[in-house]
Amino acid sequence: MSETKNAKPPKVVTAAILVIGNEILSGRTKDANLHYLATGLTAIGIRLMEARVVPDIEARIVEAVNALRIAYDYVFTTGGIGPTHDDITSDSIAKAFGVKLIKHPKAVELLTRHYGEANLTAARLRMAHVPEGASLIDNPVSTAPGFKIGNVHVLAGVPAICQAMFDGLKGGLARGDPVHSKTVSAHVGEGVIAHDLGELQQRYPKLDIGSYPFFRQGKFGASFVIRGTDEEAIGNAAAELRTIIRNLNAEPIEGETPA
Amino acid sequence: MSETKNAKPPKVVTAAILVIGNEILSGRTKDANLHYLATGLTAIGIRLMEARVVPDIEARIVEAVNALRIAYDYVFTTGGIGPTHDDITSDSIAKAFGVKLIKHPKAVELLTRHYGEANLTAARLRMAHVPEGASLIDNPVSTAPGFKIGNVHVLAGVPAICQAMFDGLKGGLARGDPVHSKTVSAHVGEGVIAHDLGELQQRYPKLDIGSYPFFRQGKFGASFVIRGTDEEAIGNAAAELRTIIRNLNAEPIEGETPA
Repeated sequence: MSETKNAKPPKVVTAAILVIGNEILSGRTKDANLHYLATGLTAIGIRLMEARVVPDIEARIVEAVNALRIAYDYVFTTGGIGPTHDDITSDSIAKAFGVKLIKHPKAVELLTRHYGEANLTAARLRMAHVPEGASLIDNPVSTAPGFKIGNVHVLAGVPAICQAMFDGLKGGLARGDPVHSKTVSAHVGEGVIAHDLGELQQRYPKLDIGSYPFFRQGKFGASFVIRGTDEEAIGNAAAELRTIIRNLNAEPIEGETPA
Repeated sequence: MSETKNAKPPKVVTAAILVIGNEILSGRTKDANLHYLATGLTAIGIRLMEARVVPDIEARIVEAVNALRIAYDYVFTTGGIGPTHDDITSDSIAKAFGVKLIKHPKAVELLTRHYGEANLTAARLRMAHVPEGASLIDNPVSTAPGFKIGNVHVLAGVPAICQAMFDGLKGGLARGDPVHSKTVSAHVGEGVIAHDLGELQQRYPKLDIGSYPFFRQGKFGASFVIRGTDEEAIGNAAAELRTIIRNLNAEPIEGETPA
């Protein structure tokens, strides 16, 4: 058994996430968006290759956006698009792209309808400003839109809004070949199975075999996750893995073990 | 009221976190270390300025370690120091520093005592390898040590081990002046208070005033977090903030609102 021969190379689409906000770095707020976006991107065949968290400092945001947008197909930022002085993401993204910040007519219209003319403060109107050339991203929760410029998608930081924005836009993203995954667990020490597991990885160089130790219900063990675009190869590697586990006098458990 | 005049500049110590692991980027595993380390560093006066998550790819780890160790006083990495083929952090850190990976005698001794001579597989012995010149970081949970080289601290990925390693080493870190923090919340719209809040920030340029909207118990509002090294200035800014809130016909709530 081995990897499928002569398979054409998979279509790979990559992404990075940039979390913007002092509150994550100080520990005040526990980020809840990274895991949601990671899971969501993986599910639609986009490979999240990097994530960064930076503070509300323009130079740091500009630097990170420019590094990530060159390196990956998509960038998703979260945070910093509200109405207060510490919301500097839109300005920073405009700087990163070397364009002006403009008042987007459609965003003004949306905010006017939402707040009413009388309550559309100057601060709220800040949320209608986007870098020139950007298109809006729908916010079904609280109206104030995100935006997209180039390959950068700018989302809110509040988890319910960030997630709704992502769910709304993901249908329009280019997808890579789906990455399939098979998990087999066992009550074996990583140090006992490591040699055979390393050889298995060498026999399947196009697959990605991860080993994740656990201690659950009073027992040590590890979950082995086999990932890749070639489902047949994954099936073959999983079969070999079950044999490896049995040869170590343990029982393969399909999937993760119960928590 | 204003910031204290002629105060000497605060002593600032900075840090970055590098989370290493495909499992975080695929969404399989929800990172639990970033928030723990962020909170722990903040508590001892070290400012976490950046975090990155990279996959188990040597070039990406080397690149990130070298970028972060130059930019910040301390770097803490998590993940990738186990016995399996996908644990490539030690190798990658050695490459980043341009030194050899060596078998550390003390680590061999610890692992031999823990596993016993007969069970010290070649894979487990991999965990005794550290970059030349590194010193060990104690692992009170499962023995296999982390290590420190230059300003980079290499910790395990399993949360219980990562956290125990950090708790053990943090007493030896240089500390900056502690950053104090005062939170006042109110049921006011961010877009309503934003103007006054921005002016308050301008009056206290050395403080960092963050605004974090919430929706709890059926009510919208925001928490305002005032942070800085000058406690007196924080107290003065908080007093002004309470006045601002009352002038908007709302009631200042000390601290965060109940969830």
